[in-house]
Amino acid sequence: MQNTIGGLGEFALITRVTSQFPTTDDVILGPGDDAAVVAAPDGRTVATTDLLVEGRHFRREWSTARDVGHRAVAQNFADVAAMGARPTGLLIGFAAPSELPVAWAEEFTAGVRDECAVAGGAVVGGDMVGSDTLTIAVTALGDLQGRAPVRRDGARPGDVVAYTGHLGLSAAGLALLERGVDGPAPCLSEHRRPSPPYARGPEAALLGATAMLDVSDGLVQDLGHVGRASGVRIDLDPAALRPDPALLEAVVVLGGSRAGAEEAARGLMLAGGEDHALAATFAADAVLPDHWHRVGVVLEADAEPRPDGEEDAGPVTVDGHAPRRGGWDHFRRG
Amino acid sequence: MQNTIGGLGEFALITRVTSQFPTTDDVILGPGDDAAVVAAPDGRTVATTDLLVEGRHFRREWSTARDVGHRAVAQNFADVAAMGARPTGLLIGFAAPSELPVAWAEEFTAGVRDECAVAGGAVVGGDMVGSDTLTIAVTALGDLQGRAPVRRDGARPGDVVAYTGHLGLSAAGLALLERGVDGPAPCLSEHRRPSPPYARGPEAALLGATAMLDVSDGLVQDLGHVGRASGVRIDLDPAALRPDPALLEAVVVLGGSRAGAEEAARGLMLAGGEDHALAATFAADAVLPDHWHRVGVVLEADAEPRPDGEEDAGPVTVDGHAPRRGGWDHFRRG
Repeated sequence: MQNTIGGLGEFALITRVTSQFPTTDDVILGPGDDAAVVAAPDGRTVATTDLLVEGRHFRREWSTARDVGHRAVAQNFADVAAMGARPTGLLIGFAAPSELPVAWAEEFTAGVRDECAVAGGAVVGGDMVGSDTLTIAVTALGDLQGRAPVRRDGARPGDVVAYTGHLGLSAAGLALLERGVDGPAPCLSEHRRPSPPYARGPEAALLGATAMLDVSDGLVQDLGHVGRASGVRIDLDPAALRPDPALLEAVVVLGGSRAGAEEAARGLMLAGGEDHALAATFAADAVLPDHWHRVGVVLEADAEPRPDGEEDAGPVTVDGHAPRRGGWDHFRRG
Repeated sequence: MQNTIGGLGEFALITRVTSQFPTTDDVILGPGDDAAVVAAPDGRTVATTDLLVEGRHFRREWSTARDVGHRAVAQNFADVAAMGARPTGLLIGFAAPSELPVAWAEEFTAGVRDECAVAGGAVVGGDMVGSDTLTIAVTALGDLQGRAPVRRDGARPGDVVAYTGHLGLSAAGLALLERGVDGPAPCLSEHRRPSPPYARGPEAALLGATAMLDVSDGLVQDLGHVGRASGVRIDLDPAALRPDPALLEAVVVLGGSRAGAEEAARGLMLAGGEDHALAATFAADAVLPDHWHRVGVVLEADAEPRPDGEEDAGPVTVDGHAPRRGGWDHFRRG
């Protein structure tokens, strides 16, 4: 069975796949040796890793192999960008059943290659093994270009909160796919191939961002990490969230009323993850380009129980109140 | 069910696990942000990744969680050492069924921590997700300390071939476990927790190694990569292979005759992988410490069919002849 990866064999597949990857100036030694060597011009390397498991993070019936390749790269280089760094190198572990079609592996590879080209990084190494569960492990490396990393713990009371990129589209796309209904293309495509604003990570660092992260589990949940790490409260202004027209359309397709579409869309923008927008805090007087949307402010952490009795409001409030719960736990998910 | 990772929940488990990891001078920013920042003092980072899948690379009935933690780290930092580099940082992806006992994850973590201490590297990041198949993805980073990486393609005719570390013990240990028979402890322990000679990677670079690699698939198969990459033939002298007493004992336990034990043990030393010895080539006049065992020579690649008719002898010969086949293909394995 030459058309499955079990039939083709590991070494033949690796050869076929690695020949697709172009190199960049950051690659000192690429795939094929015990390890790769990647440039780290300022004497530091940014590094992050993620696992994608079939049935949990993607479904072959909802996403093409090429989509999965794009997504695997995007979510990791988004984490690099969220430190204020420039993507450099990528390592991919690929665990797959022997009956996986070679075509799937090749299309996945093409997606990886194309998203690397968008992000500016290069595949420098990997591993390929057999497994009953199709699993993709990605490690991304980055270059801080001499700047300090933008961490989660630097937000200060008085800062503004802003985001750039998409919010809510991916969650709407996932909901459409789960219900098997067609809907606005931007939502479906953002779920299948998120488009993180890579270059705006280093841009935010240059603009003086005091804290930043990649929005992968939802704006409220992820800003909670900034709030806790920084010892502050973040208050979001829902009126400042301007839903994308495709998102408004999607909530109607999903059964919402036209009258309530704006509120429902804002709910998805607050709770929906996986668009891989960047959220950051900046000094109140920072001059931000238009693609950074101001959506909240950083306040002192509540020193005593909230006056309205919401004792466990947590580090993020929406218009001063505890948000409805969003996000999810990977192990608890049904 | 608080005693399973599904009951405890992802965030609680990550908190419990990451608190176990000590830091080192190489860690500029450790776990907990979007990405880690690791020192790369000479402006380059060595990077390699591996996947370990339950049932393929380890079995919970044969190896403790602590063993698996040791092994996951060892095989990756061995690849770093094989470039002549010093281990710095490690990232771990952990995909596990929700019914996995918390104790397993904690013991695994302890093994990772202890092997990192042996190798000199630090855990800087990771990811934890649910999966039906227990899968561990490790990415290891290293520092070349200003030296050129020792690649696979630098062997030259006239060089000597030497190895350091163990050969064959792990393969014998695996055979004992597969047959369910007890045997010499060094073989079982080397299979469960290989002990790569990390410091001898940088040492080999300083000794002028012209090529080097980690022996993971067997000496013959792995030196084949050096032979092909360097465009040379490597001839091994089986008489130079001195089997460990535990290995000789194991082959007898496995049913071999005492008279034939030496030859059988040499077979395991040539074909058995996963001890994570280092094999390297050096100039013929290199002065090597005793722990580097000379076992062969580098010859010109055969320009014409071999005189004895062994046309496909390949890049590695044993006493001038084609070796019996060793190694295996991850997807084709039964």
